[in-house]
Amino acid sequence: MSRFEHESRSNEETAAAPNARVVTRTLGAELHLIKSKLAEYGARTRERLYEYLPDQEPREYLYDLVAAYPERSSGMLRPSLLIASARAFGATIEDALNTAAAVELMHNAMLVHDDIEDISDLRRGAPSLHQQAGVPLAMNAGDALGLLCLQPLLANASALGPLLTLWILEEALETMFQAVEGQALELGWRKDNVCDLDSSDYLRMVTKKTCWYTAIFPCRAGALIATGRALRPEQFVQFGYFLGTTFQIQDDILNVAGNRDIYGKDFAGDIVEGKRTLMLIHLFKHATTVDQSRLREYFALPYSERRNEDVQWIVTLMEDYGSIEFSRSFARRYAGAALFEFSKAFSGADDSEDSRFIESLVIHTLERKV
Amino acid sequence: MSRFEHESRSNEETAAAPNARVVTRTLGAELHLIKSKLAEYGARTRERLYEYLPDQEPREYLYDLVAAYPERSSGMLRPSLLIASARAFGATIEDALNTAAAVELMHNAMLVHDDIEDISDLRRGAPSLHQQAGVPLAMNAGDALGLLCLQPLLANASALGPLLTLWILEEALETMFQAVEGQALELGWRKDNVCDLDSSDYLRMVTKKTCWYTAIFPCRAGALIATGRALRPEQFVQFGYFLGTTFQIQDDILNVAGNRDIYGKDFAGDIVEGKRTLMLIHLFKHATTVDQSRLREYFALPYSERRNEDVQWIVTLMEDYGSIEFSRSFARRYAGAALFEFSKAFSGADDSEDSRFIESLVIHTLERKV
Repeated sequence: MSRFEHESRSNEETAAAPNARVVTRTLGAELHLIKSKLAEYGARTRERLYEYLPDQEPREYLYDLVAAYPERSSGMLRPSLLIASARAFGATIEDALNTAAAVELMHNAMLVHDDIEDISDLRRGAPSLHQQAGVPLAMNAGDALGLLCLQPLLANASALGPLLTLWILEEALETMFQAVEGQALELGWRKDNVCDLDSSDYLRMVTKKTCWYTAIFPCRAGALIATGRALRPEQFVQFGYFLGTTFQIQDDILNVAGNRDIYGKDFAGDIVEGKRTLMLIHLFKHATTVDQSRLREYFALPYSERRNEDVQWIVTLMEDYGSIEFSRSFARRYAGAALFEFSKAFSGADDSEDSRFIESLVIHTLERKV
Repeated sequence: MSRFEHESRSNEETAAAPNARVVTRTLGAELHLIKSKLAEYGARTRERLYEYLPDQEPREYLYDLVAAYPERSSGMLRPSLLIASARAFGATIEDALNTAAAVELMHNAMLVHDDIEDISDLRRGAPSLHQQAGVPLAMNAGDALGLLCLQPLLANASALGPLLTLWILEEALETMFQAVEGQALELGWRKDNVCDLDSSDYLRMVTKKTCWYTAIFPCRAGALIATGRALRPEQFVQFGYFLGTTFQIQDDILNVAGNRDIYGKDFAGDIVEGKRTLMLIHLFKHATTVDQSRLREYFALPYSERRNEDVQWIVTLMEDYGSIEFSRSFARRYAGAALFEFSKAFSGADDSEDSRFIESLVIHTLERKV
């Protein structure tokens, strides 16, 4: 029997309504592969990234702050996926390393500004940058991180040539636009206390805010680097969509139902911040009219007046109305679809450790505890 | 007699300690030239820039906000200087138009974030973007404007070729780094209430924060576009330094001593914001110990507790201690040095309307009322 039942399903069935049940246990060998690849590619990326952190003045007011998030430990998922994708299509690690450093810098730049916009107090187990340095200097350091991510992309020119360099820059720019559009939706919904959202709204937001830079860009940039050939616009988009969405839903679940002791961000912070997660959208939809209006009132409060008891009450509601279980099941279906899309998106790649790593990431993303 | 006395001075004298007295009246013909060039190049830039403002969702939460500052009337100094520099060295307007649109977008991106970081309420005669949309959405729209400025720079590839496109991108990136470094200094000094600054600190900050994107980049990018040849690292830097500093000092003077009726920003807002202008640095240095410690106390207050009477008191101190007159005189000397540097920096350019426009900008910058 196949390891993943979805493999026996028809194309249409899986793609149209992803409902493949997948084996949700990562085998030991796979776990070892994932850990070793994340460690190896993560370390190489970190080394390259550090070369781009300016060792110059102004330190206290800028470059020490710029280095803060990159120096904290992190999962290195995005650069590892990028390097693996490049290698799966025949490139070397070195070919992909600048772009891998760039995507990690891009991620860090977004985190700095997101933490300000979301008023998040914790990041990677330490105070967020604006808690440390105040909003103005943190904002400005976030701007610098965004610029810094362009440096390794421009440095691609010497090894990859000017044309491929420009293509990758265009991909990166498209990716960053997707991210600000997704962030705009999320911030706007919270600002206007929009409560009548649908899962399709969530999926649109998450595609932009998460999937593009977490999965679609890493795969596309990797393939571009390896082949030097223009990609079809839709290439890797479906795979990245299903993988990235699985990742984000699991991220949202961990925020309210994960292990507090190993969680490096504000526990249940999404509820305090009023993030429109799939769980919250499900809850809004299924709660009684009375609960709905209480929820609406809570999310109309200024941040400072959102009490701990209310947060706990909302987590309990999410459990009682099955919102968490709904999201878990949704993520499982999406992981199944991602596996199906993987086989199409990477059909041109060699069967290598790297392509097995990318495939294994799907279930790992679903099962991760942190 | 030469129109500008400095022309008879020796190189060393003017460059080392700029003290050339300049005629501070713009002739009618020059004023006409300046107005017509700013109008023509400004309109062309605006037209090109508008093509880059996305006409798509999300509108309310993103692209309407992105368009807000670019749609307000503005001086168009930077793109006009860029186009004139390109034409002076033999390019067409069309060759320079994408890069001109980019520098104006870059300027707007900086304004959006600066206004948040400075807590400025007004911009170009209307509420600042964060007043209009709240900090989170305004921050995010500023990020989008920063990305948007890269689009016309990438679009250069089809007309200017990939190599020149990459060079201009590198220049733009260097420029934006200079700007975040200058902004970091200014924000840091205010956060820590640093009061023992020197004019050399001011000049370092202003070189980064203002001169680079206002004058150095426009000249360098213009020359690059026209000649297609690599520039020496120091090319246009001295000219841009003197012109940009003249511009910034005059900007600071107008904030406290200009005409309130035509001023589009917060009048005396620099004092409320605690900006370390040349006037304030002069005042700190020359005030009595008693006034110094009162000033220090004022700037240690949170923004909300800085009273109007105190602002007026500080403006009066600046008048009484000669800080405003000191800055006026400083700006005049710098304008003189800029004129001297102009003749060197543009010695390879044709004697054209465009080079005369650039030269005339120096005195215009010094004399402008708005």
